[in-house]
Amino acid sequence: MEAKTPKESLTILTDMVLPGETNSLHNLFGGELLARMDRACSIAAQRHSKKIVVTASVNHVAFNKAVPVGSVVIVEAKVSRAFNSSMEVYADVWTEDQETGEKTKVNEGIYTFVAVDLTGSPVKVPMIKPETDLEIERYNGALRRKQLSLILSGRMKPEEADELKALFS
Amino acid sequence: MEAKTPKESLTILTDMVLPGETNSLHNLFGGELLARMDRACSIAAQRHSKKIVVTASVNHVAFNKAVPVGSVVIVEAKVSRAFNSSMEVYADVWTEDQETGEKTKVNEGIYTFVAVDLTGSPVKVPMIKPETDLEIERYNGALRRKQLSLILSGRMKPEEADELKALFS
Amino acid sequence: MEAKTPKESLTILTDMVLPGETNSLHNLFGGELLARMDRACSIAAQRHSKKIVVTASVNHVAFNKAVPVGSVVIVEAKVSRAFNSSMEVYADVWTEDQETGEKTKVNEGIYTFVAVDLTGSPVKVPMIKPETDLEIERYNGALRRKQLSLILSGRMKPEEADELKALFS
Amino acid sequence: MEAKTPKESLTILTDMVLPGETNSLHNLFGGELLARMDRACSIAAQRHSKKIVVTASVNHVAFNKAVPVGSVVIVEAKVSRAFNSSMEVYADVWTEDQETGEKTKVNEGIYTFVAVDLTGSPVKVPMIKPETDLEIERYNGALRRKQLSLILSGRMKPEEADELKALFS
Amino acid sequence: MEAKTPKESLTILTDMVLPGETNSLHNLFGGELLARMDRACSIAAQRHSKKIVVTASVNHVAFNKAVPVGSVVIVEAKVSRAFNSSMEVYADVWTEDQETGEKTKVNEGIYTFVAVDLTGSPVKVPMIKPETDLEIERYNGALRRKQLSLILSGRMKPEEADELKALFS
Amino acid sequence: MEAKTPKESLTILTDMVLPGETNSLHNLFGGELLARMDRACSIAAQRHSKKIVVTASVNHVAFNKAVPVGSVVIVEAKVSRAFNSSMEVYADVWTEDQETGEKTKVNEGIYTFVAVDLTGSPVKVPMIKPETDLEIERYNGALRRKQLSLILSGRMKPEEADELKALFS
Repeated sequence: MEAKTPKESLTILTDMVLPGETNSLHNLFGGELLARMDRACSIAAQRHSKKIVVTASVNHVAFNKAVPVGSVVIVEAKVSRAFNSSMEVYADVWTEDQETGEKTKVNEGIYTFVAVDLTGSPVKVPMIKPETDLEIERYNGALRRKQLSLILSGRMKPEEADELKALFS
Repeated sequence: MEAKTPKESLTILTDMVLPGETNSLHNLFGGELLARMDRACSIAAQRHSKKIVVTASVNHVAFNKAVPVGSVVIVEAKVSRAFNSSMEVYADVWTEDQETGEKTKVNEGIYTFVAVDLTGSPVKVPMIKPETDLEIERYNGALRRKQLSLILSGRMKPEEADELKALFS
Repeated sequence: MEAKTPKESLTILTDMVLPGETNSLHNLFGGELLARMDRACSIAAQRHSKKIVVTASVNHVAFNKAVPVGSVVIVEAKVSRAFNSSMEVYADVWTEDQETGEKTKVNEGIYTFVAVDLTGSPVKVPMIKPETDLEIERYNGALRRKQLSLILSGRMKPEEADELKALFS
Repeated sequence: MEAKTPKESLTILTDMVLPGETNSLHNLFGGELLARMDRACSIAAQRHSKKIVVTASVNHVAFNKAVPVGSVVIVEAKVSRAFNSSMEVYADVWTEDQETGEKTKVNEGIYTFVAVDLTGSPVKVPMIKPETDLEIERYNGALRRKQLSLILSGRMKPEEADELKALFS
Repeated sequence: MEAKTPKESLTILTDMVLPGETNSLHNLFGGELLARMDRACSIAAQRHSKKIVVTASVNHVAFNKAVPVGSVVIVEAKVSRAFNSSMEVYADVWTEDQETGEKTKVNEGIYTFVAVDLTGSPVKVPMIKPETDLEIERYNGALRRKQLSLILSGRMKPEEADELKALFS
Repeated sequence: MEAKTPKESLTILTDMVLPGETNSLHNLFGGELLARMDRACSIAAQRHSKKIVVTASVNHVAFNKAVPVGSVVIVEAKVSRAFNSSMEVYADVWTEDQETGEKTKVNEGIYTFVAVDLTGSPVKVPMIKPETDLEIERYNGALRRKQLSLILSGRMKPEEADELKALFS
């Protein structure tokens, strides 16, 4: 299987914040944003793998700024790295100023998906070859995040996590 | 106000078809697709005008192909022409084959929006300068559609609709 | 098959506007109204044809007045004309003043449906015999709208559209 | 205030059962039907009183038949009796056979609403004068149901409930 | 089958009131609360019977206090009595003061469910042995409510309802 | 402020998986589960702090098992540790076998919330004193996760993260 670029899986989900999607402070409800990011990331993983994909984990989502009702929200998802049958996907979230059109980053999340066949068994996916500086940085970080996830779930011992150990030595 | 290109208002809404959005044949429910198109078009109109916009009319939406549950649906909206305070917006809708990634056009719709200030009064918006062949074709058709809409609502007499008369003479 | 009157397909959908169905100006969101009209019209088409029906197109929907949260909205749908397997359906939309009970027309839309069998093939439907003045006017206009739709989609040449040509000559 | 007939508050909510509104047996989910009935009954109470109304209680709802996905569901609500500021409203629920158009009663419910002013204080509503046999029967039963409700909530002693005592003596 | 205690079926559904679930007074919409109670009660009935259960009736739901947007709402459901294949389930509903954490009872409802097999035929369920004073009171009242329900639906004559007659004699 | 136990913030959200909440494999949609966990965790944080809380980040959510439509899902959320104005909250997610009632762990997630006043400024919250072995383990791990989060967002240097360095040395 030939490697692909992150750009080939780019998925853009632009949508408004309606009153039915807000919390009691009239900002976009966190759970609704998590759901939108999950849908955009899962389409990106499907575009990369051309397979059925299922959410394996949400690794880190930081809510930096509240998003008020009526805002335009743009979720952009791209596969950052692939490992056999799993894919790490980054979602960057922006809002847009109505008068100036200026975009502000409000949120960033990292999701992991697994490609499966119709019986639910994992199947191989193409590797990623990153192009831009940011894509390369995220590609390199993906292995550290994967080791960390394995340690946190007890499936790897800290002393075996070479990438992570290097970070702290 | 300087004229803008349709591309400057391009809005992409990529999303899945979940089971809760289907009709009893397990295809995307028509009303749900109309709602998604309305949201994408209204963001395009807002990006063009930098104003609050309200839906004035839905002029023509053709459902060519059923969209089964689980599909990826891409709505792409762009302003095709502006008249004082109103904007005609085209939404093109595609699905994507999961295995090949090939896009199929399933639907096309034309919406009209009006830009308003906080009191609800119409405000002027920038003109459109189309670039591609398709944008020019849609730009030229917009005046005929506007005249037709005025005739259908009884606000223009057929004999005054120069653009339309030319079509049938 | 015996012809039927529009009244036989009359479908009434009375419902409230809840906060979760509004836009950021606290009025009924356009997409939600389009969805309600689609459901009411599709029931009317089903009542006329006694068949499975699918939305073929939305021909014209004009939003004349904003509908604030808390309003009572009444959608009334009736088949206006039938052609072989397709049906044109009119939806009239009113709100009701809470204190006086007076009804105000806020919106009107024209939808087209096709009756199909279980394999999705089009099937014949009964003709319409209009009764009231408004029903006769809409019945007569339906042929012009059908020709217009065929021209706009490139399936008919303007010079073949007799009904429309008469309008502009 | 002049008395009104039940017919003056008649509210019809015709709608489909979409897959997102079903339980795991693919029938209309009970809670969704309760919500539709609540909305229809509250509009009927508002039409009778011309006031803001709030749900006070749901007295009896019997689910007689399952309603499969894709069905057309008709909720018809009418005020059956009024007491000072409260109104008893009956909702009758039917489905419609797609091929024959025949209606089948699937459900019936009794809701109570209170009319309030903007501060939430109860306000007087017009009395009901029933017309049909069924309306008279429901009108007469309403007092028994009201007494029963007061007994169940401990606000009336059984020996004071004249209407109910008569039933069992 | 061995009898079970109400506590064994206790089901707790704690959730917030989001703006999309409110009426136009910004309080929890009655229909939404009815739906939440239905889901909690049906899980309680399923936990008691270990069978598929379907809603048979809603016997009495009293809305005592409005529940404003942003509130935490706690629904607690327990089977109060079982009869062959049917189960009466009580739902108690509280809100919680944000600053003090104090709980206030806002609503109480009684639902009836029937346990069925895969063909939809009723199947036997375990009996209930109540433990607390409140459970015993509700257990004793259940037979009266069942007789009342049979009378109201015309399936029992008032003079046969021994439990109810005793109440009024 | 006196320290509190995790148990004091325990929040239980038991609910069903309806067809409208599933993905195209008829399992609970990942985004819907993330939203339910967010709501349960935010109530737990509010119960601990008695303040308004906003989601700051989702630190790790692992989807171990698919949850089929019709399942009963139990989300249990408890504050695991507090730092000045922020709280780490664990959500444990189980399903329940319908016939045996046996619970299976399907998912686990870690969310962080910040307590704020009405102007949105952070406010202090009580400390946590863990009681059970699992609570103590999670309490101890919380500092490592916090340092990790600060490193990942570039607000701490790896060599300053004493807790994490100890893990890898």
